[in-house]
Amino acid sequence: MIPKPQPATMAVSTLARMLKGQVRCYSAPLDMAIPASKQRYIPTSGTYPRGFLVSGTHVGVKASNTRFPDLALIASETPCSAAAVFTTNKFQAAPVQVSRQTLSSRKGEGIRAVVINSGCANAVTGKGGLEDAVKMGQTVDECSGAEKDSSLVMSTGVIGQRLPISKILDRIPTAYANLASSHDAWLSTARAICTTDTFPKLISREFTLPSSPDRVYRLAGMTKGAGMIHPNMATLLGVLCTDAAVEPAALQSILKHSISRSFNSISIDGDTSTNDTIAVLANGAAGGETVRAPSSKASADYEALQTVFTDFAQQLSQLVVRDGEGATKFVTVRVRNSSDYESARQIASTIARSPLVKTALYGRDANWGRILCAVGYTQGVADGVVVPERTSVSFRPVDGSPILKLLVNGEPETVDEERASAILQNEDLEIEIDLGGGEKGAAGCGGEDAVYWFCDFSHEYVTINGDYRT
Amino acid sequence: MIPKPQPATMAVSTLARMLKGQVRCYSAPLDMAIPASKQRYIPTSGTYPRGFLVSGTHVGVKASNTRFPDLALIASETPCSAAAVFTTNKFQAAPVQVSRQTLSSRKGEGIRAVVINSGCANAVTGKGGLEDAVKMGQTVDECSGAEKDSSLVMSTGVIGQRLPISKILDRIPTAYANLASSHDAWLSTARAICTTDTFPKLISREFTLPSSPDRVYRLAGMTKGAGMIHPNMATLLGVLCTDAAVEPAALQSILKHSISRSFNSISIDGDTSTNDTIAVLANGAAGGETVRAPSSKASADYEALQTVFTDFAQQLSQLVVRDGEGATKFVTVRVRNSSDYESARQIASTIARSPLVKTALYGRDANWGRILCAVGYTQGVADGVVVPERTSVSFRPVDGSPILKLLVNGEPETVDEERASAILQNEDLEIEIDLGGGEKGAAGCGGEDAVYWFCDFSHEYVTINGDYRT
Repeated sequence: MIPKPQPATMAVSTLARMLKGQVRCYSAPLDMAIPASKQRYIPTSGTYPRGFLVSGTHVGVKASNTRFPDLALIASETPCSAAAVFTTNKFQAAPVQVSRQTLSSRKGEGIRAVVINSGCANAVTGKGGLEDAVKMGQTVDECSGAEKDSSLVMSTGVIGQRLPISKILDRIPTAYANLASSHDAWLSTARAICTTDTFPKLISREFTLPSSPDRVYRLAGMTKGAGMIHPNMATLLGVLCTDAAVEPAALQSILKHSISRSFNSISIDGDTSTNDTIAVLANGAAGGETVRAPSSKASADYEALQTVFTDFAQQLSQLVVRDGEGATKFVTVRVRNSSDYESARQIASTIARSPLVKTALYGRDANWGRILCAVGYTQGVADGVVVPERTSVSFRPVDGSPILKLLVNGEPETVDEERASAILQNEDLEIEIDLGGGEKGAAGCGGEDAVYWFCDFSHEYVTINGDYRT
Repeated sequence: MIPKPQPATMAVSTLARMLKGQVRCYSAPLDMAIPASKQRYIPTSGTYPRGFLVSGTHVGVKASNTRFPDLALIASETPCSAAAVFTTNKFQAAPVQVSRQTLSSRKGEGIRAVVINSGCANAVTGKGGLEDAVKMGQTVDECSGAEKDSSLVMSTGVIGQRLPISKILDRIPTAYANLASSHDAWLSTARAICTTDTFPKLISREFTLPSSPDRVYRLAGMTKGAGMIHPNMATLLGVLCTDAAVEPAALQSILKHSISRSFNSISIDGDTSTNDTIAVLANGAAGGETVRAPSSKASADYEALQTVFTDFAQQLSQLVVRDGEGATKFVTVRVRNSSDYESARQIASTIARSPLVKTALYGRDANWGRILCAVGYTQGVADGVVVPERTSVSFRPVDGSPILKLLVNGEPETVDEERASAILQNEDLEIEIDLGGGEKGAAGCGGEDAVYWFCDFSHEYVTINGDYRT
């Protein structure tokens, strides 16, 4: 199961595979050059939270990586509140188990750093793997002089291989020495967590809170995609940092809410990895009141911060879809007027995962039959939510032109095929399903909406994921 | 949404699409010639149940079909017990609604025929579509002089289009006149229900029952695949006929049991259509005792017939997987030693639907990480069924050579890559997941097994399903 190191003479085999249609056209090129079409997603500057220092350092976790950063360190000058959302997969990688334990034993307080390696997932590695993950955190704690168990740990890469732990531990002091607060440092750190991503995913913003409207807070976040070009690479990681002060329980609750509406509302291929983790650190360096859970008086701040986080996490998670393996389309599916939010979300998720819908979109086919079919077979939908006679399906163009109705109250429309075709030429598309469940507040109707973001299934997806390992 | 008829000058556009990698390499050729690799699945003779007459007749439901049979009629000389399993999709096609109503009003008795058209699914066609489906059944009843509501109706093809109902009704008398009991008639009937299938799917067998061991009964069945080359074609249909006598309640219960372990345990792409229907007719023409549900004294016959039906339905359903769109692999996944059957089935189903597993198999990659990952993220698994430390994954070669262990009790094996590669060169493969839940009867353990059959995801799947409609 161990992928062989890629030999220097790879060009010849690449050519052979290209002729067989198996070259990785859409994945990161060997020199890590960012494709022209993705350049627009990379920020040229940012507003980063105070008191955070970051670095991306080369270790060479994969022997074939001789120069690109693969160790990310995100550190705060002062102890932080912290929260995290972990994969629900029953096979939890060692860093997931260790970070979960750290957060629990620290009760979400006193966290100083997150250390992340790419190139190896440290998953299904037994007791030795757990020890490796613990050592990574300990070594960071020792460098910074922080208390024991002050660091969270993440890994991403191949499953079933042990980390080259000595190499990593040896380079942690360098990573610590490299810490900086510049935009370039943030970008290099975002790059260090990438595996098969074609571009680093980093955003930042400022915001205010109702309790002190003149005070500026900052929020920055990085993520890596669910790209799985090399076998067994199947991880979504994310780190968010803010200089607002937030108590741990409020932070966990805000994170959970925002992730449910962002990172848990995107789909590349529906597979959920052993390592998925999104963590947030809040160091309070910007001053101001501490944001607390809604039961206390500071609930206006809580609501405001939750909105900021949700919007931010949505932007960040959409970058993952933009970099979906082989993706040629960025599709938003909005399920409206459901009498029940969870049912709406299940329907959106089912459409986003349907191979038939995804291949039709790749083929630029206005195939509402497949969309409707997926609505109809969604599992876990409450009774009475889907009623054929009040279900409508439309395409909403991203250029603001009128929506194109495909099905209205269960009756097929006569579709202007030229217009449909024109809409489907665009990279971006919004599919709207209206369940006709009425407006909020109407008797018996909830009017709940759910949104999912997903990409299409292309020949390149199959090429990338069916790629021979040797 | 209306696919344009394919022009006679198609060869040029086919060539253009071939250059773009979009030609339908794996689908039925225009002349309906059966690919050499599929010839072995077509029987050259059969043992068909007494008292049944069948025909496949050309109608031209699709204008482009100028000569191939697209109307199937299966009729019994005497009234039958009947049962059916229908799609669970909330958007139920008109023939599904009509046949369900017919079976219900007749209490599963007195059914004389099944009439099926291919080329148009009569789905999402409103009140007019329901009237069309009713008329098809009525016209068959009139031809045969049977009582009202003696016929079941099925359709398969494009969603959202009305049937060319006059053409169909006009040809039903010819279909009736064509009725015959020969092997050729059965094969032509099986062909008439195909859409994008590359070969007709027909099997037959003889069996005996404990109550009269010397009496020979016969069972024949035909099915069509979940092929969806043309947009909106997404239907699995099946008809089983036996000359055993079975009371309707027993027939329904046996059908449900066998379908759960056959047609509902296969996956091409996980999409469930608006039209899926499997029906069974039992006319009792072979004589002997009537098989009744287990509460009565004839339960030995019931058990025996259930076994015969389940085995038969598995064979028939496997032909659908053999003809999966773009499929290059036939994969059996067996989840063993689960403490709970339903959990084992969910796990098998999740592996069968994982795009990452399916593309790895296409790439002949012994990628147990993706298989394990799918086990871990399966929804709806009872607590304690999946325990990483007692989970094992193996490949079982079809040639009877020893199994290849990939993961044993949660620990990765050192895999003989050459052997893995050799196993994966075969079209057939069995993946075994052992949940280590112990043997049947052991304390706290059920030792339940579940099996699923599926195919891989290939470039051709994307080509076929992303194909432009025009």
